[in-house]
Amino acid sequence: MKRSVEDTPIVFIGAGNLATNLAKALYRKGFRIVQVYSRTEESACALAREIEAEFTTDLQEISKEARLYIVSLKDAAFVELLPQISEGKGKALLVHTAGSIPMSIWEGYAERYGVFYPMQTFSKQREVNFEEVPFFVEANSKEDVELLKAIAATLSEKVYEVTSEQRKSLHLAAVFTCNFTNHMFALAAELLDKYHLPFEVMLPLIDETARKVHELAPYDAQTGPAVRYDENVINHHLTMLEDTPELQEIYKLISKSIHEHH
Amino acid sequence: MKRSVEDTPIVFIGAGNLATNLAKALYRKGFRIVQVYSRTEESACALAREIEAEFTTDLQEISKEARLYIVSLKDAAFVELLPQISEGKGKALLVHTAGSIPMSIWEGYAERYGVFYPMQTFSKQREVNFEEVPFFVEANSKEDVELLKAIAATLSEKVYEVTSEQRKSLHLAAVFTCNFTNHMFALAAELLDKYHLPFEVMLPLIDETARKVHELAPYDAQTGPAVRYDENVINHHLTMLEDTPELQEIYKLISKSIHEHH
Repeated sequence: MKRSVEDTPIVFIGAGNLATNLAKALYRKGFRIVQVYSRTEESACALAREIEAEFTTDLQEISKEARLYIVSLKDAAFVELLPQISEGKGKALLVHTAGSIPMSIWEGYAERYGVFYPMQTFSKQREVNFEEVPFFVEANSKEDVELLKAIAATLSEKVYEVTSEQRKSLHLAAVFTCNFTNHMFALAAELLDKYHLPFEVMLPLIDETARKVHELAPYDAQTGPAVRYDENVINHHLTMLEDTPELQEIYKLISKSIHEHH
Repeated sequence: MKRSVEDTPIVFIGAGNLATNLAKALYRKGFRIVQVYSRTEESACALAREIEAEFTTDLQEISKEARLYIVSLKDAAFVELLPQISEGKGKALLVHTAGSIPMSIWEGYAERYGVFYPMQTFSKQREVNFEEVPFFVEANSKEDVELLKAIAATLSEKVYEVTSEQRKSLHLAAVFTCNFTNHMFALAAELLDKYHLPFEVMLPLIDETARKVHELAPYDAQTGPAVRYDENVINHHLTMLEDTPELQEIYKLISKSIHEHH
């Protein structure tokens, strides 16, 4: 009988936002997740229960029976724990999910290794639809590139092989695209709250801003006082922000940048 | 026979992004747009043709027969042209569409006046679906508030009466929510371009970032290196941005702000 990729037994090392979303998605596709490790029992147990896996909070207790180890830890923790994580894993494939860490970090620690990076914003409170999440994979052998591609392809149609260099750039661009954008929403929510206005009123604008760049390049999609250099409005807004110097500085810097780009 | 709001003959003063989208939407709902004014013949003519209206580039030639004048100009131009715009309009209702200009600007120039502010990002190249655009209206009489609400209600289900003070805050929040967000997309596109990666790869992330804040408050939706204060990643990104000091400064300031808010 031919084995399918779903027969690959997997251990998740980490039970954060990304690991939780990815493990649940793989579980639903029929993968067997044998174990979840997390530093905290609460996280390990919560994820393990949802995907019918064992859990441990002890690195020494991590199963040696899996064929794929998916490491999804905060970068600093990963670097620190790398020797213990890779110890005794023999011929298994070890991958991390970080946009920012090069594949070469595994060198000298594992025989078969790679990167399995789904580029999306993950929160435990919200289930992501993986069908449209781009996966960027990399491995130290052609066979493992194909294996990682096949696993990613069970979840998404957008699977790409990229170098560590390219992935690093994607991750940096993603920080601007997602985290900084979301912070603009957070600052807007703060402003609205100050004036007793609900954030919900911004949702149609948020949706249109996102839809727009499917059709127009962001450069062409720009509108508002900074791009038309409406000094009246800009100065008036800066006055309104006088009691929040942090927001005023952000307003100034981004408006200047918009103006200089146009 | 009862007259419906659609019988209100309208003149558009201005033929920019907002005016173009709004005039076309009203035209499609059966409103009669009698005339379009713009400083440039190209803009005036292009819009007029699409909505079966006359056009002029001469303020003196603006029709005196309309019952509603919708002024949609750059703020500075509006303030400058206000005396000429309001001259001889008698009993007609004059409104502007600016988020940032108080209604009181009309005082002493017109008898009936108000504000008709659709809060959305408008570009001529893209037709906006008005059904979900919130309209914020204001007028100097109850009757005209009702008239503006009725006109807005032909386009959208979200019509609110707000004060000039509230509208100003909404507009400031909208600059953060839309313009600054779009600029983050533009900077990401620039970065990706530098590394020969296509911007399209960011679209699923952009869509999820927008969808997420329908469910989670932006504060709770935040992810990425700044919120978990992953100094390794942050410092690495700052090194990558060394040859673009402007982006580096933006990265630093927003990351600091994210970190301080969490």
